[in-house]
Amino acid sequence: MINITDRVRNVALRSKIVSAEEAAAAIKPGMNIGTSGFTPAGYPKAVPLALAERIKKEKFQINLWTGASVGKELDGALAEVGGIQKRLPYQTNDAIRKGINSGAIQYVDLHLSHVAQMSRYGFLGGKVDVAIVEACAITEEGHIIPTTSLGNSASFVQSADIVIVEINTSQPMELEGMHDVYIPLDPPNRQPVPIVKANDRIGTPYIPCGPDKITYIVPCDIPDAVRPLAAIDDDAKAMSGHLIDFLNNEIKQGRMPKNLLPLQSGVGSVANAVVCGLVDSPFQNLSVFTEVIQDGMFDLIDAGKLDFASGTSLTPSPDGLKRFYAGIGEYRKKILLRPQEIANSPETARRLGIIAMNTAIEFDIFGHVNSTHIMGSKMMNGIGGSGDFARNGYLTFFFTNSIAKNGDISSIVPMCSHFDHTEHDVDVFVTERGVADVRGLSPKERAQVIIDKCAHPDYQPMLQDYLDRAIKATKNAHTPHILSEALSWHVRFLETGSMKSK
Amino acid sequence: MINITDRVRNVALRSKIVSAEEAAAAIKPGMNIGTSGFTPAGYPKAVPLALAERIKKEKFQINLWTGASVGKELDGALAEVGGIQKRLPYQTNDAIRKGINSGAIQYVDLHLSHVAQMSRYGFLGGKVDVAIVEACAITEEGHIIPTTSLGNSASFVQSADIVIVEINTSQPMELEGMHDVYIPLDPPNRQPVPIVKANDRIGTPYIPCGPDKITYIVPCDIPDAVRPLAAIDDDAKAMSGHLIDFLNNEIKQGRMPKNLLPLQSGVGSVANAVVCGLVDSPFQNLSVFTEVIQDGMFDLIDAGKLDFASGTSLTPSPDGLKRFYAGIGEYRKKILLRPQEIANSPETARRLGIIAMNTAIEFDIFGHVNSTHIMGSKMMNGIGGSGDFARNGYLTFFFTNSIAKNGDISSIVPMCSHFDHTEHDVDVFVTERGVADVRGLSPKERAQVIIDKCAHPDYQPMLQDYLDRAIKATKNAHTPHILSEALSWHVRFLETGSMKSK
Ligand SMILES: CC(C)(COP(=O)(O)OP(=O)(O)OC[C@H]1O[C@@H](n2cnc3c(N)ncnc32)[C@H](O)[C@@H]1OP(=O)(O)O)[C@@H](O)C(=O)NCCC(=O)NCCS
Ligand SMILES: CC(C)(COP(=O)(O)OP(=O)(O)OC[C@H]1O[C@@H](n2cnc3c(N)ncnc32)[C@H](O)[C@@H]1OP(=O)(O)O)[C@@H](O)C(=O)NCCC(=O)NCCS
Repeated sequence: MINITDRVRNVALRSKIVSAEEAAAAIKPGMNIGTSGFTPAGYPKAVPLALAERIKKEKFQINLWTGASVGKELDGALAEVGGIQKRLPYQTNDAIRKGINSGAIQYVDLHLSHVAQMSRYGFLGGKVDVAIVEACAITEEGHIIPTTSLGNSASFVQSADIVIVEINTSQPMELEGMHDVYIPLDPPNRQPVPIVKANDRIGTPYIPCGPDKITYIVPCDIPDAVRPLAAIDDDAKAMSGHLIDFLNNEIKQGRMPKNLLPLQSGVGSVANAVVCGLVDSPFQNLSVFTEVIQDGMFDLIDAGKLDFASGTSLTPSPDGLKRFYAGIGEYRKKILLRPQEIANSPETARRLGIIAMNTAIEFDIFGHVNSTHIMGSKMMNGIGGSGDFARNGYLTFFFTNSIAKNGDISSIVPMCSHFDHTEHDVDVFVTERGVADVRGLSPKERAQVIIDKCAHPDYQPMLQDYLDRAIKATKNAHTPHILSEALSWHVRFLETGSMKSK
Repeated sequence: MINITDRVRNVALRSKIVSAEEAAAAIKPGMNIGTSGFTPAGYPKAVPLALAERIKKEKFQINLWTGASVGKELDGALAEVGGIQKRLPYQTNDAIRKGINSGAIQYVDLHLSHVAQMSRYGFLGGKVDVAIVEACAITEEGHIIPTTSLGNSASFVQSADIVIVEINTSQPMELEGMHDVYIPLDPPNRQPVPIVKANDRIGTPYIPCGPDKITYIVPCDIPDAVRPLAAIDDDAKAMSGHLIDFLNNEIKQGRMPKNLLPLQSGVGSVANAVVCGLVDSPFQNLSVFTEVIQDGMFDLIDAGKLDFASGTSLTPSPDGLKRFYAGIGEYRKKILLRPQEIANSPETARRLGIIAMNTAIEFDIFGHVNSTHIMGSKMMNGIGGSGDFARNGYLTFFFTNSIAKNGDISSIVPMCSHFDHTEHDVDVFVTERGVADVRGLSPKERAQVIIDKCAHPDYQPMLQDYLDRAIKATKNAHTPHILSEALSWHVRFLETGSMKSK
């Protein structure tokens, strides 16, 4: 067995060290399992793998609640054996996605800042029955030192009847001290979250637990299954350039401090590329208040441009993870992980004045955003934290390529096929073509600037034609739509394989 | 001239008393005019009427920024002479609505909590040039005592170059002391909003201004043009009954304190009816943290059930206004008006754990809400504060009648024709038919309970048929839609006058 004695500092607790199989045996069919993990970082691995083995034989299902997406040893293993009845609040796993889009898995796509409180309120179908949390170590007082993410772990541990701690020896002990755990009281007793700067500490460096609340301790040495980021292509570079020009002008106009405001940047390749681009920007003394800390943030720290990054998860590429572990002595001075309830809090996003930068699947000419559904029906990943930040940021950007699938899809459409962020929530749209600043504009004004600045030339005349005809058909109504045509581009793609008219 | 000498307590300032015409002459074409007013309450009347007269002769336009909707002497008078180029952030006036839906007026429909900060940030097309604010009085220090609403007045005064104060003698001096004015600093200097209970006071009872900043003072005696509320019908009573049953069960299940959590209730007849219904409920020691204080709140105070109501505006019916003025000595102890930036703040809504109750135009089977647009194109009123509260409340309700226009419209549709609140934001739907509790449900689960509990029997089979066929057509995808049919109910209504198939 992997030796974790040193990491279980409370001597009495060492008697609770068991195998993954033994711990997994505590789980009953139909239970709500709340785990650590946010992106493929800091999620439990050994117990879920053992649980999947058990489910394969015994055929039953559980409900899986996490921070966000998690790695294949958890989402993948359980989905592949058909072990998940209900999944929340976010996922990016192929097996899960297939289950969601074939009716095998019921998926609840939630704002990430809502999850912990909804689980405490008992709004998600009962409370957490079992918490499974990956840890670096357990303190003498029986508190839990998390690993590469914090997510909803602290709340799940607080609510659960059974707490299983997976001590992962692949996670360096230098992670200790990089967390700031704060669980708000629930209404009517909640108090202000006393954060006014990205680096403010308001909680404890461990998840409060105590020895009695820990049921089992399981050793594990499987590393986080981090994934490579796509190479930064010309389109991504163009978007990053547009962003920098735009922010420079905001500074010039007196609408933005010289060192900007705390940056939030979403998941995926475009988001990472945009952050990487800031390395070559003139901006200094930046700060980050975000969910996910990707490779770009390390670039900014190394370049001496980033003073501090607050997030809920470390999600580097495989190379980035090596680099992080090698430089952890320095990185740990500039990075803090918080519960996602705090990292994504509307309260802090608005107070700090986040610059919110997220990626869309598509947006429409009137400024609505689809972040989640392919052609209106198929779930891609989920809304994640994009709504927490977009609604409450100081300045809200959405990025996307103007086209997808080799040009057969226009990512700017007459009407979105699904809506995650409304016209009321977005300030600026960016594609590789340019920037549409829609602040203070009416829907028709927005439509014109989005068509002119963001759409692909192949689709610009079609969009303009729709807008012109819709204005005529509705006698110039507030948001002119021809409802019989509004979704026809998507219908055409589904029928012919292209949004282009033949 | 109306005598306002006593109400201008700073003696030197009395020299700035001018006629409405003289004050209106300071306004130049193209200026951004920021006024007091939120619902037909506390808006300036004399200067706008004089401005409308001037515009009739001189033919020019201004941009009008307010708290929310305002009375006919402001919105109506200016719209009727074609004097408004851009209007924000909310309206309910027939002339304005006509202008918006014919292309004559550009309308920017904003979350009401966003307006003050966006105006300070300079995001709305420049800053406020002229502030026109209705007041009870001006203090010796030159500060402004507001009247029946607070809205964005304080921020507009802070930003404006020219400040015009309309002293309205129809507003009783007992309003003094009923306001709590707090303007947050902007990022990166913003601090927590230190409210933890509905009755917490954090600011001043006046709008900070100072004598030098006041340009003109204008006397006025035109009363607020408050409007009658529709009679409470059986459908509204049924919805109110459903709400009370639901909340009772939440208490029983331990998910809600016995005296509930602070109530927010939207505008309009349904919202008022729901609040009125609480008079006959078993709930005691209620509190309210809302935008608009309507007649129902007075009923609750008189019944001894409401400990405190915080809002940004007093919007009673004509009878309610008489009752309020008559009982102001008692009501003022239990009512406080705040800037809408604070009343509607996501920070306080979430901390206090608001019960958010708003009305929808339509919602769809998957739980998205349209609050603003008739048949996707025509603006009704605007999103108002519904998004501020719905997204951040402890428990979020949307109410609507299951049908409209004598049954030719189903307010529950396959897909909304416009989206203001997404599936991620709503917990409970209520129609006269029943209650759909969609917490923790996947889209397909939501669809079934919405059809079963909320839809009208005339439309239930059609909705079920759509859902069943969409599940088949998409092979059971996450959110099954047949895009070529999703909006066909609206198209049919536009073409035939009914959503029912012939
Ligand atoms: C929207 C999102 C999926 C984009 O991620 P990305 O890695 O930048 O996206 P890609 O460009 O690789 O596109 C992903 C897929 O969608 C497809 N796609 C892109 N635009 C499309 C469109 N308009 N219509 C249909 N499909 C589209 C791509 O072709 C690609 O398909 P594939 O998987 O078959 O190759 C991702 O950002 C996301 O999940 N966002 C929601 C959550 C979020 O914002 N979290 C951040 C909060 S902190
Ligand atoms: C949605 C809203 C318009 C409903 O107001 P209400 O007074 O309860 O609504 P009514 O039932 O009288 O309906 C208003 C009109 O819409 C029509 N209508 C109702 N449902 C409809 C539907 N599904 N499709 C088309 N029209 C519909 C009604 O027939 C009525 O038309 P009319 O003016 O021609 O008579 C109103 O609540 C609103 O503006 N909400 C958005 C702002 C908000 O929520 N603010 C509160 C934040 S604190």
